[in-house]
Amino acid sequence: MLEKINFVLVGTTHPGNIGAAARAMKTMGLSQLSLVQPTAFPCAEATARASGADDLLTQARVAQTLDEAIAKDTLILGTSARVRNLPVPLMNAREAAARMMQTVNSGGRVAVLFGKERYGLTNEEMERCHGLINLPTVENFSSLNLAAAVQVLAYECRMAALDAANENPLASFKAAQELEPVPHEKMASFYQHLFSVLARAGVFDRIPDTTLKRRLKLMFNRMRPQKHELDILRGILSNIEKKLP
Amino acid sequence: MLEKINFVLVGTTHPGNIGAAARAMKTMGLSQLSLVQPTAFPCAEATARASGADDLLTQARVAQTLDEAIAKDTLILGTSARVRNLPVPLMNAREAAARMMQTVNSGGRVAVLFGKERYGLTNEEMERCHGLINLPTVENFSSLNLAAAVQVLAYECRMAALDAANENPLASFKAAQELEPVPHEKMASFYQHLFSVLARAGVFDRIPDTTLKRRLKLMFNRMRPQKHELDILRGILSNIEKKLP
Repeated sequence: MLEKINFVLVGTTHPGNIGAAARAMKTMGLSQLSLVQPTAFPCAEATARASGADDLLTQARVAQTLDEAIAKDTLILGTSARVRNLPVPLMNAREAAARMMQTVNSGGRVAVLFGKERYGLTNEEMERCHGLINLPTVENFSSLNLAAAVQVLAYECRMAALDAANENPLASFKAAQELEPVPHEKMASFYQHLFSVLARAGVFDRIPDTTLKRRLKLMFNRMRPQKHELDILRGILSNIEKKLP
Repeated sequence: MLEKINFVLVGTTHPGNIGAAARAMKTMGLSQLSLVQPTAFPCAEATARASGADDLLTQARVAQTLDEAIAKDTLILGTSARVRNLPVPLMNAREAAARMMQTVNSGGRVAVLFGKERYGLTNEEMERCHGLINLPTVENFSSLNLAAAVQVLAYECRMAALDAANENPLASFKAAQELEPVPHEKMASFYQHLFSVLARAGVFDRIPDTTLKRRLKLMFNRMRPQKHELDILRGILSNIEKKLP
């Protein structure tokens, strides 16, 4: 199941961190690494720090955009050492790992996003997230190394996988709750449709559209529509579209 | 309580690992670092990798023997990525952290031992241990980086300390996320507005409206809009309403 979890490093500056992250993942049984616009990759320093996990580097998917990297994933989680004031559900790494197992066990795919070394994920990047994973750093020193954050998440994923293998009687019930997860690309095209209808209805005439679009994304991400529910929303948009002048 | 936990690095070869370990500890609120016969210390590379955790390096106790480093500690735990065939109680990192909290809460002091990068702790070193902490690496790739092992243990110590203090750092924030809860009547009038707009757009012409209305309610209930978010939705509905014939 761990192979369905996609660790996505966004805009990583130091290639050594990419190697160390691959090593951290492999020790815990994870294999799917994606890199969005890495500063330097492939790179000898990454391979050196991978220390035997070079297969993960060879198979790593390098993407030009974050959307491309997570297109097929149904549960998108961001990581953050600081607590952000965004209306996205917060969870700790342990809760997140349990949630990931549910998703994976019911046929979904998970993406866990790790931001740039210096600043972490931007608010714009976090718009795609169904949840934010808060790492429990102390208040006055939250400077967690990127590979260390990857290590903690990978460790919790493995613990959750080992737990799940010990047959949880609730597992099948929980799984039924996520029957038809929606991959990121479907949500992205729903947002496109939504925004084009709203533009035609004059919604963006008064409010700056970036702010409003971000708010709406965060709201609908929280809704987490299933496949048939997304069809309903699309149907409604089409209806409205036809009636608009 | 975390200051009573002594992380002991035995015979560390690479000074960079000492720095990275100090950083990993400090992010999680640990401060007591001991070094038994480090190959190179102090060292610029250690300071660089500590990345702001140099205070832990300055205060680190350098010892000539392991016995000296753990002299005052009452609970000695060793770490190991492989399962050793030694008659020492095995535990995972989570169980170990709970055990450490017990010890510390009852006035004891804890030492956690980390062996050389290449081979880990020797059997001779492990003889001092009351328990062995097994890190859950996969069978064919147990090559956990030293600082990564320190990070996992430090993380579990912090989680156990937070549990013990019953102070979840996210609790107050989670509450803040629900600052503007929406009373049922507000949601009810939103639904009325939504359904009247959808009716005018012809959405209920094809689908029986009770089914569709129920589905939409379940979806928007999951979204759990805040007060200002509900205002946004109402504003959008008004916009569309004006444009409909």
